[in-house]
Amino acid sequence: MARIGVIGTGVMGAALSLNMAEKGVAVAVHDLDAASIGRLIDRAGPLAENLTAAETTEALLAALPTPRAILVMVPSGAVDAVIDGLAPQLAPGDLIIDGGNSDFLDTRRREAALSERGLNFFGMGVSGGEEGARHGPSLMIGGRQEAWGLVEDILTAIAARHEGEPCAAWLGPDGAGHFVKTVHNGIEYADMQMIAEIYGIMRDGARQSAAEIGAMFEGWRTGPLSSYLIEITGQILAAEDPETGRPAVDVIRDSAGQKGTGRWTVIEALKLGQSASVIEAAVAARAWSSRAEARQAGAALFAPAGGGAGAPAVDELGRALLAARIIGFGQGLTLMRSASDAFDWDLDLARAAEIWRAGCIIRSVLLDDIAGAARAGLPEGELTHAPAFSAMLEETIPSLRRVVLAALGQGLPVPALAAALGYHDTMRQARGTANLIQAQRDVFGAHGFDYIDGRADRHGPWGA
Amino acid sequence: MARIGVIGTGVMGAALSLNMAEKGVAVAVHDLDAASIGRLIDRAGPLAENLTAAETTEALLAALPTPRAILVMVPSGAVDAVIDGLAPQLAPGDLIIDGGNSDFLDTRRREAALSERGLNFFGMGVSGGEEGARHGPSLMIGGRQEAWGLVEDILTAIAARHEGEPCAAWLGPDGAGHFVKTVHNGIEYADMQMIAEIYGIMRDGARQSAAEIGAMFEGWRTGPLSSYLIEITGQILAAEDPETGRPAVDVIRDSAGQKGTGRWTVIEALKLGQSASVIEAAVAARAWSSRAEARQAGAALFAPAGGGAGAPAVDELGRALLAARIIGFGQGLTLMRSASDAFDWDLDLARAAEIWRAGCIIRSVLLDDIAGAARAGLPEGELTHAPAFSAMLEETIPSLRRVVLAALGQGLPVPALAAALGYHDTMRQARGTANLIQAQRDVFGAHGFDYIDGRADRHGPWGA
Repeated sequence: MARIGVIGTGVMGAALSLNMAEKGVAVAVHDLDAASIGRLIDRAGPLAENLTAAETTEALLAALPTPRAILVMVPSGAVDAVIDGLAPQLAPGDLIIDGGNSDFLDTRRREAALSERGLNFFGMGVSGGEEGARHGPSLMIGGRQEAWGLVEDILTAIAARHEGEPCAAWLGPDGAGHFVKTVHNGIEYADMQMIAEIYGIMRDGARQSAAEIGAMFEGWRTGPLSSYLIEITGQILAAEDPETGRPAVDVIRDSAGQKGTGRWTVIEALKLGQSASVIEAAVAARAWSSRAEARQAGAALFAPAGGGAGAPAVDELGRALLAARIIGFGQGLTLMRSASDAFDWDLDLARAAEIWRAGCIIRSVLLDDIAGAARAGLPEGELTHAPAFSAMLEETIPSLRRVVLAALGQGLPVPALAAALGYHDTMRQARGTANLIQAQRDVFGAHGFDYIDGRADRHGPWGA
Repeated sequence: MARIGVIGTGVMGAALSLNMAEKGVAVAVHDLDAASIGRLIDRAGPLAENLTAAETTEALLAALPTPRAILVMVPSGAVDAVIDGLAPQLAPGDLIIDGGNSDFLDTRRREAALSERGLNFFGMGVSGGEEGARHGPSLMIGGRQEAWGLVEDILTAIAARHEGEPCAAWLGPDGAGHFVKTVHNGIEYADMQMIAEIYGIMRDGARQSAAEIGAMFEGWRTGPLSSYLIEITGQILAAEDPETGRPAVDVIRDSAGQKGTGRWTVIEALKLGQSASVIEAAVAARAWSSRAEARQAGAALFAPAGGGAGAPAVDELGRALLAARIIGFGQGLTLMRSASDAFDWDLDLARAAEIWRAGCIIRSVLLDDIAGAARAGLPEGELTHAPAFSAMLEETIPSLRRVVLAALGQGLPVPALAAALGYHDTMRQARGTANLIQAQRDVFGAHGFDYIDGRADRHGPWGA
């Protein structure tokens, strides 16, 4: 008998199957495309002894002891069809795990529907790409906690490890795992965009070559900025296009794609009455990058900003990036806390940060401190108010401010860095300017307002 | 017989009924609360001769010739229930108009459902508040064009007028009217926030009194900034709190409310693969304004920015606000064009701008030029590329840049002004930095990228 079934032997399904087989877990694998199963078994080499090919779902289910655990790794458009086909053949207590990049709202819907039939359902975020899936991903799991014991040993065995601790955790009911993965991706968008902005300041402000900029990122591989994204950025900037011999980044088109999770994060923040403004800036930048014609027309139409040349020192840029990264992470945590409150997840923010410390795209030395701060409790719910982080910000915010000022003076777009600074400045202003907005809303919509002395829901003395 | 029925005699329903009665239109009015109907009739004075109280929907329908036209003015949560109650009593060709602030997606759903039953349904955005509804609102109508003739004379009669032209128009099928109203409200959010940021610069940067700042806004009542929101801002800043004798704005609490349409605009932009970043900044600022405790803790925790004192000259601030306002309007138009493409509305952007010239909250002298530019066709779909506006921006962007730089240097939050500048700088950068993001995506997700020389969907030469 196998311990677990996998439906879908594409890139991610195959990688996770091989990872499990390597850890000694017997896996029954199924795919609509029998040839795909065959290719997986062929590739598996000696690991094939832990893989059982199942040409039908009946064969897959027959190979599993009850309660069964089945991991579904199919394109997001196919998840409902696979579940609908599978569910009638399952028995109460069986567990379906959706390991795709599903919208957590779909996961909530599916969990509720399957729960009514006595079936267990997990939505599991998997980060780390194919490489991570094969050798150690970060796994964010949501669903009924009672079912966790059924697969805990398997999933912790295949996960990435941070100082020996597995980066896999059950995080909360229904959509909690997929939501945390969505926020992970949002933070990833923000971090990538901020790195691109720093790159732009060096490229367009200081006229540095890809190699020179790459050396700067290489220098950040140790120290407080140390992270996977910094690491690959250094690597990318050093790479040559084999055909032209030019630095690869100089000949790659500047239109970025996106698959939607960044956007989901921002939309969910808005629905929860918040704003993940740093992530929004990153999503926006990707959208605008695709409008090359309009940008080229704009470049012809408008004069350059004409500010000073040169760029801030490398240390200054590093501190700016660190400050903005902390603020971006902070917005992500605030959003997770709100969602947890709204959906009754009782989400352990520290646990989420802990399983991001290895295996996933946003892994970073910073996450150890973030997990620690979250474990200690965030004052006013703000990461930036935790002592370790407020101290770091006090030291780095002046650099972020100078970097943003220098870039805007030169006309260089730094929307994510500016959004981080804007959030910081807004959240340290004890008396904001929304009093004027409340007055305006009362004038034209009779919405009413409160006075600072406690008089509530009043209307104004507005003359004509 | 009456010409039209109105269901819901609350603030807006009553105001529109009186407006119609005043224009000589016979109106049958109904409300679940019979007392509310009575109060309306009492208030109507001599206009009561054009109002017929209908205590039941049966009585309302009996008072109308076929095909019937019924305007529904009820809280958004009650719209479905009212329609469900009404529809079975109607005959093919009858028209229901929802004049509430409905989500255009609900309007699309309702239109499709009623259309299947042979009924006509309009979603109508009404702007101008109670005052506008009573004496001349801006009316944005979406639905089947064939039904427009049934109510065109009534709705154009009650609408605001701009140089004699009524500010009411059929704009496109199903949700087009409510969508245009949503974008209107998004632009309203952005404009209010930018005005509040300018106010903040004067209050906190230049330490000016409410009266002094008010005088500045008064000065902008003529000239290119002339608009309803500038006008009421001057009026607000001059007003005194009758209890304390202090300027009213100085004693109003700085937490702004929101009812959701600003948020819808931003969410819809994101869903359409775009970003209405200036509106997003305004929605975010309102959200953060409600976190007073966190802001006060932040103020205690972090040192002030310590930048220079003083504020830019009044003319400089005016030009900055004008530039940002143009960019905010431009994002709104771009969003409407995308939605029109996505939902097949064939939306006439110029017509939308025309009916915003009077009656609504964002009415402004700028809208005449915007309508003209849209009528002439927007180059690359960008308002800012239209000759009149690129010239205005060329003149005003340097001021916007200096104002944003001065504010950020002083640590004053100007998220909407900064977002406008960020959009401008992004859209005049012929070569952006998304090339780096594409490379990163290829490294960790094998997403592939294009080269600038046309080689497409390649993977990188990334060393380890």
